[in-house]
Amino acid sequence: MTSTPELFLPRPTCNQPKSIVILGSTGSIGRQALEVAKARPDLLRVVGLAAHSNTELFAAQIAEWRPQVAALWDEDAAQRLRSMVSGSTKILGGSGGVEEVATWPQSTLVLGAMLGAAGLGPTMAAIRAGKDIAIANKETLVAAGQIVTVEAREHGVALLPVDSEHSAIAQCLRGEESRSVTRLTITASGGPFVDTPRSELETVSPERALKHPTWAMGRKITIDSASLMNKVLESIEAYWLFDVPMEQIDVLVHRQSIVHSLVTFCDNSVKAQLGVPDMRLPIQWALLHPERVSGSPPPLDLFSMGPLSFEKPDAERFPSLNFGREVMQMGGTAPCAMNAANEVAVEAFLARRTGFYGITNCIAAVLERHENVKRPALDDIADADAQARRIADEWITRNSSVI
Amino acid sequence: MTSTPELFLPRPTCNQPKSIVILGSTGSIGRQALEVAKARPDLLRVVGLAAHSNTELFAAQIAEWRPQVAALWDEDAAQRLRSMVSGSTKILGGSGGVEEVATWPQSTLVLGAMLGAAGLGPTMAAIRAGKDIAIANKETLVAAGQIVTVEAREHGVALLPVDSEHSAIAQCLRGEESRSVTRLTITASGGPFVDTPRSELETVSPERALKHPTWAMGRKITIDSASLMNKVLESIEAYWLFDVPMEQIDVLVHRQSIVHSLVTFCDNSVKAQLGVPDMRLPIQWALLHPERVSGSPPPLDLFSMGPLSFEKPDAERFPSLNFGREVMQMGGTAPCAMNAANEVAVEAFLARRTGFYGITNCIAAVLERHENVKRPALDDIADADAQARRIADEWITRNSSVI
Repeated sequence: MTSTPELFLPRPTCNQPKSIVILGSTGSIGRQALEVAKARPDLLRVVGLAAHSNTELFAAQIAEWRPQVAALWDEDAAQRLRSMVSGSTKILGGSGGVEEVATWPQSTLVLGAMLGAAGLGPTMAAIRAGKDIAIANKETLVAAGQIVTVEAREHGVALLPVDSEHSAIAQCLRGEESRSVTRLTITASGGPFVDTPRSELETVSPERALKHPTWAMGRKITIDSASLMNKVLESIEAYWLFDVPMEQIDVLVHRQSIVHSLVTFCDNSVKAQLGVPDMRLPIQWALLHPERVSGSPPPLDLFSMGPLSFEKPDAERFPSLNFGREVMQMGGTAPCAMNAANEVAVEAFLARRTGFYGITNCIAAVLERHENVKRPALDDIADADAQARRIADEWITRNSSVI
Repeated sequence: MTSTPELFLPRPTCNQPKSIVILGSTGSIGRQALEVAKARPDLLRVVGLAAHSNTELFAAQIAEWRPQVAALWDEDAAQRLRSMVSGSTKILGGSGGVEEVATWPQSTLVLGAMLGAAGLGPTMAAIRAGKDIAIANKETLVAAGQIVTVEAREHGVALLPVDSEHSAIAQCLRGEESRSVTRLTITASGGPFVDTPRSELETVSPERALKHPTWAMGRKITIDSASLMNKVLESIEAYWLFDVPMEQIDVLVHRQSIVHSLVTFCDNSVKAQLGVPDMRLPIQWALLHPERVSGSPPPLDLFSMGPLSFEKPDAERFPSLNFGREVMQMGGTAPCAMNAANEVAVEAFLARRTGFYGITNCIAAVLERHENVKRPALDDIADADAQARRIADEWITRNSSVI
């Protein structure tokens, strides 16, 4: 018996499993999404898969899941795949093939978990086909936030965050009025270098940067986590998802990665979402929204979780923290250029072609030379991305002797 | 621009301030409720006040707020009051007078903040008159939870928690489905004796028990906080407000009193509400529900709040913790008897007629002799209350030589 029934939403009746498509199924998020689906076959049915070029894993996924359609972005890999799989799955290749998966008529929700800027095209195609989007590719919103959110609104599709921070914020916002929100506070584990002095960071190796203290993630996002660029991308993502000014979005270092983010309201009440650091929780939340069910996410033991600490991040050691407000003030294609420069610089860092601070220096150099387009169309985004990558490449080549 | 509009509730249009009645206006909660109302005269209008017997303060409140009606429970005090106030406020006395205030036609919400079991009658009268109840008197729900919640449902009135813990839970539940809740975790500062050994507690003075580390509250609730009986009462209150089985309600020691309580959902996601320990926040939340507005609650600085700790409470030093599940298993009038015995024992402890463990020993003795009525009507509740008080008094008198 409940005496405050207005607190609760009615339970949706759900007799049919939700049909979903996973873009980026061989990546870290994609694989965990399949685990989530495996735990609840009564609620989730995988009808389409797409990936970049990992044929072996992709072939195994097709054999296990028997989706209606599957595509590899890499045409040659798709060609090899055709000889590896049997069964009724339609096998496609190239960006056109991935878009066909993204817009597959039988799906109602698309998980966008392709790496980097490559996710933009298929995500836009899915939105225009009226699919709800579980958005794990933050670069899509960073590069083209305005276009994506306007199209999502026009096509009446939900953009459901998969990042643990944005999932936390969305969970805290449920049932609240948008205008009562005064601050979003994105938590950061601080990454592997939370206590590393600047002098040491100047010569730190990619191997050390890849050792994340709390989260098991892909390589690109783990480096972004070490440089705190991840938090810049997440702040911009939050801006577009939740319509809160950048000045009201903070980053808070919370080493334990238990509190995934917080929302402050105008009455100075703060809500937070907590959980073990495991991506299956936010993935499940997005895939099954608005239903919560038991499934693969493991429990958090409140009695033994130990003390939780909170600190201001150090913008001197992590100069990336300043980029967020800077590029959002510039607007237009500046966030896209920052994101492209970061992708190039992270690759260069992993290949030992630049140092840890080469990442932020490269981004700063690209932003300085960026020809900003104030109200970009999708083509302008693509141009800005290409231009930024070219400038970043040149900068890396010119400065690679430094390390 | 918001791309996930289904997350947000529509903003209620509110041109008229809400007319409210405060029962217990001279107490700690009542005085802070008036501060909340003072900060937002555009949203809250005080039309009725009631208190026990503090004529001086009550007369000053009438002079300041000019309510339409005001009553003192104590008839003699009401008589004195009549000669102290001028103006158009209708002055009443006795339990009948308080009930007239509780049911005053011009109000839409009644804040029930009378001390102890005395709050039951007026609260029931207000519910039957169709008033929404901001419930600060947890003893009402402990003693008569079934009757109160059934009547509230029948009369379509909301029971809005004012306790910071229950306010936190209600805030975390907003927008969620009731059946997705798997656990409520009520936080406890641990009180002044969180680290005091049992041997020392046996002879501890009322003065030390009244020194609460984080909350400024009334005397009765401060002692309940020291014995952790407060958490037992709150667990039972949560049971009735949120319809969660007692086995799924935990108490968690959190010394900083920043996290006011937590809710765990079936997907292992946990939501928490945080804020500075200041009752004006949950009071405002209840009085203005479902609106959040800026007002008197002070902000929480997430950057400087320091580490937050969480520990299992010690049921050996605080044997009261076992009463919750015990009396809820007994059901019927047992929780009422426990509550009445606690009130008597706390008074005796404050008067140095019993020791700190005299409180729990007295309650245990009363429960042992309690003649339980399984499906009580209001009269049975009153009888159980009186019987328990008599037994508790006898027990205190018989055992007072012990200290």
